[in-house]
Amino acid sequence: MSLTVLKLGGSVITDKDRPDTLDGEMLDYVADAVGDAQIDDLVLVHGAGSFGHHHASEHGVSKTVGSSDVAAVIDIHGAMETLDQFVLSRLHERDVPAVPVHPFSVASRDSDAELSLPVQQIATMLGEGFVPVLYGDVVVHEGKGVTIVSGDELVTSVARQLDADRVGFCSTVPGVLDEDDAVIPEITSYESVADVLGESESTDVTGGMAGKVAALLELGAPASIFAPDDLTAFLDGENPGTRIDG
Amino acid sequence: MSLTVLKLGGSVITDKDRPDTLDGEMLDYVADAVGDAQIDDLVLVHGAGSFGHHHASEHGVSKTVGSSDVAAVIDIHGAMETLDQFVLSRLHERDVPAVPVHPFSVASRDSDAELSLPVQQIATMLGEGFVPVLYGDVVVHEGKGVTIVSGDELVTSVARQLDADRVGFCSTVPGVLDEDDAVIPEITSYESVADVLGESESTDVTGGMAGKVAALLELGAPASIFAPDDLTAFLDGENPGTRIDG
Repeated sequence: MSLTVLKLGGSVITDKDRPDTLDGEMLDYVADAVGDAQIDDLVLVHGAGSFGHHHASEHGVSKTVGSSDVAAVIDIHGAMETLDQFVLSRLHERDVPAVPVHPFSVASRDSDAELSLPVQQIATMLGEGFVPVLYGDVVVHEGKGVTIVSGDELVTSVARQLDADRVGFCSTVPGVLDEDDAVIPEITSYESVADVLGESESTDVTGGMAGKVAALLELGAPASIFAPDDLTAFLDGENPGTRIDG
Repeated sequence: MSLTVLKLGGSVITDKDRPDTLDGEMLDYVADAVGDAQIDDLVLVHGAGSFGHHHASEHGVSKTVGSSDVAAVIDIHGAMETLDQFVLSRLHERDVPAVPVHPFSVASRDSDAELSLPVQQIATMLGEGFVPVLYGDVVVHEGKGVTIVSGDELVTSVARQLDADRVGFCSTVPGVLDEDDAVIPEITSYESVADVLGESESTDVTGGMAGKVAALLELGAPASIFAPDDLTAFLDGENPGTRIDG
């Protein structure tokens, strides 16, 4: 069996200009692609998009700044559960046996912000033929109440622990772009793209792409970044967009 | 810090004669008691009552008989999430910092039906001042799809792993009853009550009380079984109903 971990970007499946608003057409489009795919084991992770982010910033919660206010937890987590229910029901309409794994129920961070995410239930779900669905969420954090865990962190943690064969990021960009805005087909070392992406810490400048590439080079499984119109190709085993393999 | 694990019986907080119906008055009553309590660390677990049970039997799912039908999973789990949202919102109205831990997201059974329930996130939630709330749910089960995990199993697993100081079962009966229907104040060995309860395997006859008492005698923490009007006394540190301490 071959395991694929697929991230559906929050800005792909939601309308990022309107709070708590789906991009229903795009969600249908990606759900069609997942429903039509002939693949073995699949874990899906979706981002927060316009559901989680504005609730998180209203409450001042980020990956590093926490809150112990239960209203903040319920507000952010509740918005993400709502988005998750939309994603699940669109998948069920296409006979994808998707089941929810709420990250807040299972994950935690210690006082060094290290994420712990037990995955035995995910492995068993896969073995029983289900498609576990996770999403960016709040996570309890020792000494800080709750902070945010991103979909990307969950992808990395699941892929590493379950020894995934392939990782895909379905995003709003067609891949990692070079200085002429052309897609770089493959990245095998950070040095080769440092000129384009800048230092890997400068996530502000690059919209997170630098840090993402650096993290994916360490993953131990090949990862592809591609746009929604390449999702079917990715699920068919092709390497659309940018393939990152350290 | 002292940890209390409290089970709210499904037949206490729901109207067991009507599918998917709360006993709203009783839920308010127990939420008042929890909201007024002066206790350190508290984990709440609630049963399924009229929400989970009839969906589970419609789909033929029990603790031992499984299903791989995603519609069954979503139906049973969805009903329990609905009940859980009622419980959480009544607690929030009383300023109890209750947060959801969905058992299906975290637990699993292996092929020997052994339950695995990671609790690091629950321990961290307690440390951050939250009140984790779990409930009887579906659980993925190696070789069987999903089966049911009861609230009682969750109570036992959490109490044992987190070394609880006290365990309480708020139920529809005032305690374990003797042959004259009087409450037995304390049970310290199974032999002392075998005449009344019968063999501990004969759960059909006793409505599960025999197996429950046998399991609680093994728990390593004192457990009390009592009716809702004794909940405040229990949370105040008293020993209403039947105290079981092996």
